[in-house]
Amino acid sequence: MRVSELVERSGVPLASIKYYLRERLLMPGAPTSATRAEYDEAHLHRLWLIKALTGLGLPIPKVRAVVAVLDEPSPSLFDALGRALSALPPYPDEADPPTDYPRARAALECLGQTYDPGYPAVAQLERALVAAERVGVGLSERKLRAYGEHVRGIAAADLAEMPTDSVQDAVEYAVLGTALHEPVIAALRRLAHQDIAARTLTPTESEA
Amino acid sequence: MRVSELVERSGVPLASIKYYLRERLLMPGAPTSATRAEYDEAHLHRLWLIKALTGLGLPIPKVRAVVAVLDEPSPSLFDALGRALSALPPYPDEADPPTDYPRARAALECLGQTYDPGYPAVAQLERALVAAERVGVGLSERKLRAYGEHVRGIAAADLAEMPTDSVQDAVEYAVLGTALHEPVIAALRRLAHQDIAARTLTPTESEA
Repeated sequence: MRVSELVERSGVPLASIKYYLRERLLMPGAPTSATRAEYDEAHLHRLWLIKALTGLGLPIPKVRAVVAVLDEPSPSLFDALGRALSALPPYPDEADPPTDYPRARAALECLGQTYDPGYPAVAQLERALVAAERVGVGLSERKLRAYGEHVRGIAAADLAEMPTDSVQDAVEYAVLGTALHEPVIAALRRLAHQDIAARTLTPTESEA
Repeated sequence: MRVSELVERSGVPLASIKYYLRERLLMPGAPTSATRAEYDEAHLHRLWLIKALTGLGLPIPKVRAVVAVLDEPSPSLFDALGRALSALPPYPDEADPPTDYPRARAALECLGQTYDPGYPAVAQLERALVAAERVGVGLSERKLRAYGEHVRGIAAADLAEMPTDSVQDAVEYAVLGTALHEPVIAALRRLAHQDIAARTLTPTESEA
């Protein structure tokens, strides 16, 4: 297809498409003349992915990091996933990141999980635990264990549906599912609070 | 204590304290002269709460909604919690909110939970489900059921630790815990993905 059709079908403006081509986020089309190129479904799919990632708040260098994994996947799927997922927000604002995250370390030890200060999610966990503690709602060990068990169930359900036939499909599912299912979980949690509270705090209604 | 001590102990600048007093977010002190008033621990606690809520991104009218529940709690704890929790972000951007949320309705029916389009979390769930679907990672029924079950376990752990001796304490815990434990859950989920993937995708290492 011509670039005009790519604009129409992707909903991405021509100026953005040209920018993505220059930045090598979008692979070049097959040249048909000095000024024209032919694009296919792979280009359309890539544009759709870039749109989804920028929509999630990823700045261009982070979109590039995800795209780089798709274009040159690591031999190991585990490494490819790790590289791509580390491009997701939230981003730490420390210029000089700490070398140890004591609260995250203690929490992961309690849950029997590997602690590696190099994982971006470890820094993210530390920040979340500090913020909760600071306003007086630090996690008790009992609550941490309950969270750990149930979050593991959620994560297992996520991984059970990850397509494994291609590294590209797995990486796309992992990146988009990690980011886009977080708000689903947050909304379901608030609704579960409401549902449980309705049953336990309003005895007359639940007995009726 | 004098207002200067309140500034010092709360870390909130005098100008903000005066603003909160004018806006009636902070209750007035006991006047000791025409220009002086005496404050106590309740004022300090309230300032700390306002700071925590604004830190979560709540605009002043939403902080006021939470504070109103603390100052005039409903006779029913369930209603008080509902009123306070509806002040939390994310806020819908529709000026004219829809009257029905079909995806959220279907999801809640599947989970056997009450569907009430008036709950802010229902609109939040609808938006999250639409966003996921739009980028091709819509929730399968199997995954929704797994999420529902485990999120319910998380919500039960939350409610088990809610203080019930005063409506005020319960409301504060519910508002702060709802908002501040969401990032903890998100970080734990990413770490659980990594932990499960390390065990299942790198057989040599896990067999070693």
